Amino acid sequence: MLNQKAYQSLSHTFQRLHRFGHLGAIAGWDQAAMMPPKGNEARAAAQAELQVLMHQLITAPQLQEQLQAAEQEDLDPAQRANLREMRREWQQANLLPAELVEAKSLAAARCEHAWRSQRQGNDWQGFLLNFREVRDLGLEVMQLLGFDFDAGRLDVSNHPFCGGVPEDVRITTRYREDDFVQSLMGIIHETGHARYEQGLPRQWVEQPVGRARSMGIHESQSLSFEMQLGRSRGFLALIAPLIRRRFGDQPAFEADNLARLYTRVEPGYIRVDADELCYPAHVILRFEIERALINGEIEAEDVPALWDEKMMAYLGIDTRGNYRDGCLQDIHWTDTFGYFPSYTLGAMYAAQYFAVLRRQEPNLDARVAAGDLSPVFDWLQANIWSQGSLWTTDELARRATGEALNPAHYRAHLEARYLG
Amino acid sequence: MLNQKAYQSLSHTFQRLHRFGHLGAIAGWDQAAMMPPKGNEARAAAQAELQVLMHQLITAPQLQEQLQAAEQEDLDPAQRANLREMRREWQQANLLPAELVEAKSLAAARCEHAWRSQRQGNDWQGFLLNFREVRDLGLEVMQLLGFDFDAGRLDVSNHPFCGGVPEDVRITTRYREDDFVQSLMGIIHETGHARYEQGLPRQWVEQPVGRARSMGIHESQSLSFEMQLGRSRGFLALIAPLIRRRFGDQPAFEADNLARLYTRVEPGYIRVDADELCYPAHVILRFEIERALINGEIEAEDVPALWDEKMMAYLGIDTRGNYRDGCLQDIHWTDTFGYFPSYTLGAMYAAQYFAVLRRQEPNLDARVAAGDLSPVFDWLQANIWSQGSLWTTDELARRATGEALNPAHYRAHLEARYLG
Repeated sequence: MLNQKAYQSLSHTFQRLHRFGHLGAIAGWDQAAMMPPKGNEARAAAQAELQVLMHQLITAPQLQEQLQAAEQEDLDPAQRANLREMRREWQQANLLPAELVEAKSLAAARCEHAWRSQRQGNDWQGFLLNFREVRDLGLEVMQLLGFDFDAGRLDVSNHPFCGGVPEDVRITTRYREDDFVQSLMGIIHETGHARYEQGLPRQWVEQPVGRARSMGIHESQSLSFEMQLGRSRGFLALIAPLIRRRFGDQPAFEADNLARLYTRVEPGYIRVDADELCYPAHVILRFEIERALINGEIEAEDVPALWDEKMMAYLGIDTRGNYRDGCLQDIHWTDTFGYFPSYTLGAMYAAQYFAVLRRQEPNLDARVAAGDLSPVFDWLQANIWSQGSLWTTDELARRATGEALNPAHYRAHLEARYLG
Repeated sequence: MLNQKAYQSLSHTFQRLHRFGHLGAIAGWDQAAMMPPKGNEARAAAQAELQVLMHQLITAPQLQEQLQAAEQEDLDPAQRANLREMRREWQQANLLPAELVEAKSLAAARCEHAWRSQRQGNDWQGFLLNFREVRDLGLEVMQLLGFDFDAGRLDVSNHPFCGGVPEDVRITTRYREDDFVQSLMGIIHETGHARYEQGLPRQWVEQPVGRARSMGIHESQSLSFEMQLGRSRGFLALIAPLIRRRFGDQPAFEADNLARLYTRVEPGYIRVDADELCYPAHVILRFEIERALINGEIEAEDVPALWDEKMMAYLGIDTRGNYRDGCLQDIHWTDTFGYFPSYTLGAMYAAQYFAVLRRQEPNLDARVAAGDLSPVFDWLQANIWSQGSLWTTDELARRATGEALNPAHYRAHLEARYLG
């Protein structure tokens, strides 16, 4: 009989963590998409209690011994990869004291709620009724992109996101009266996240090795969908008739015009509205501010001035006095510090995948335009989604594309699209 | 300084239980109102894990010592009542082994899901679009009944219920194409549950003493709203114009006709559709079957035959071969055994409250017809909602009405309404 006592015990602990995380994820989605305002205080307390419990579970003293003992046990390669991921999660959690976890969870919930109410009114139900057509189009495009509606939903929230659990993926979108074109790309972006979750190896769904590899890789999926597939000639040719069917047969909705619309470059205040070319500037600006804060080179009160300076330097835009569209614009700083680089890492990985994909399938655009998206889905399913966390990030990229992250592909992509 | 060491420790444990319960309640609401079908298996596992955790917390050995030690500590009357309720919850939980809790939670979730899919198709989103008018009327009536929309929501599910937590109450309703009149009474019923939750003593919200007294008392609130207030002459006079405004100025929607509609007596198959007079027969039938099962006098396979026999005896209805509208009709038997008597206990309590209320305010109908519902809300707030679990059920009834439960009031109510 195999000796796996410590491993099996760890496996049970991480299964429990997954299940508690499931409840936290659904309650978090509810908080953003469904919860009435007076529910926030109690929800924040409940979520903080759950975070503390999960932190206790993963910092329990016996885990260290079990992690050591399991190294000597009879494990197959996938189990060994799972053990490596367990250790990684364990190490990261053990850096933080429990009081900090609770305080951070409470503060984040309060901040996020304040952000929501302070940034904008919130009557999405009313909104929805007016935007049935846009929503229907969004659902149609999600279907086209292979989202499994028996294992997920689309709803509305202030900041679009992809939440829930692999078995039940919750996408949200927001609608702007003036720009359905952008809402649609937002949905395509979140559908990329969703298909990654829905495509993760199901037999490992409750274990660390079954999770998405990293947030950079996660963004590489959303950006593969939004930037590489979604704005490609082939895809725009495919969806142009769907748009015309709902919004009228106008020249603006010809594929060529859509392509121009979706590759227009114009520096602006807002990261989430930025075009593909300006986007990295928004990310670099935030990364530099975060790094300076963490290194203690600046204090929080220095952020607005630094923001103004960098926006002028990188994008030529004057942001003085406009906090709402300046350093208050992102939900991330209420909660997730250091996340922004994931977007640009993701964009670079996505360009690298599609360089391989287009080499393997030179007729990609023609097939996509004809409604056959399988080359994209099959490649991502085989090389990324099904691989979960079996490999390190570098190894994942190497197995999929033959090399680790190489920014040359991103540069080539931008040059082809914008200087071509 | 007060000696409250054991009490404070218990208080912290029950606070944690409340917060975990919050997450379970929201995830449970989501399961019924939002979750896509493929999410069920993982949700069931997550909920079972939470149930086991909560069961472990409340059966931890030190609780017994703390409950004993706290008896000797310096507690004020509300704290003492809280301690009594803690002991009650502790006793009930300690009757059950952890394996049973997990197995029951898993089985219940699977059963409930099967019930949902087996009993009926589930496209409520589509449904909703067609029933905007009914929904709007429902929202208007909830507003009239004082539901706090900043601390709760109305959504759609297969079986109407009131869930969530006091700080964030989730009502659901269902709509029948053929009977908006009934949907409306369903909403009024659930709003009664909701106002009880929203009116519970806020300073005790995370402790046992701050919870609803019992499910019998809970149903006494929903039935105070539905049967005593909702079907009263005054209330029907108040809402008749709202109904006519939405559905047209027909004679059917005059207050007198609504009163006839809402007091029509006709034996039928379905408990939740039963009229006020037939309802207790449905409850007694189920209670007798449950009691026989628990006492081992019958087996599960005997239920359909016994059902047929009793339906014929009590309501004169032939139910042979019709499981769907027979013993499969209630969601309760997938989950909550022994609950049905709560409805009839609640109906009796509600009649008893209104006997007092109408004695104190002989012009109740006139005031309600004029839109002044405050006598009802004030009385329930002062005598029931604000009292949480400060008193035993008998004591609560005595303080509110001068006597423990007395079925004479229910009888008098039924005679006045149906033989008057």
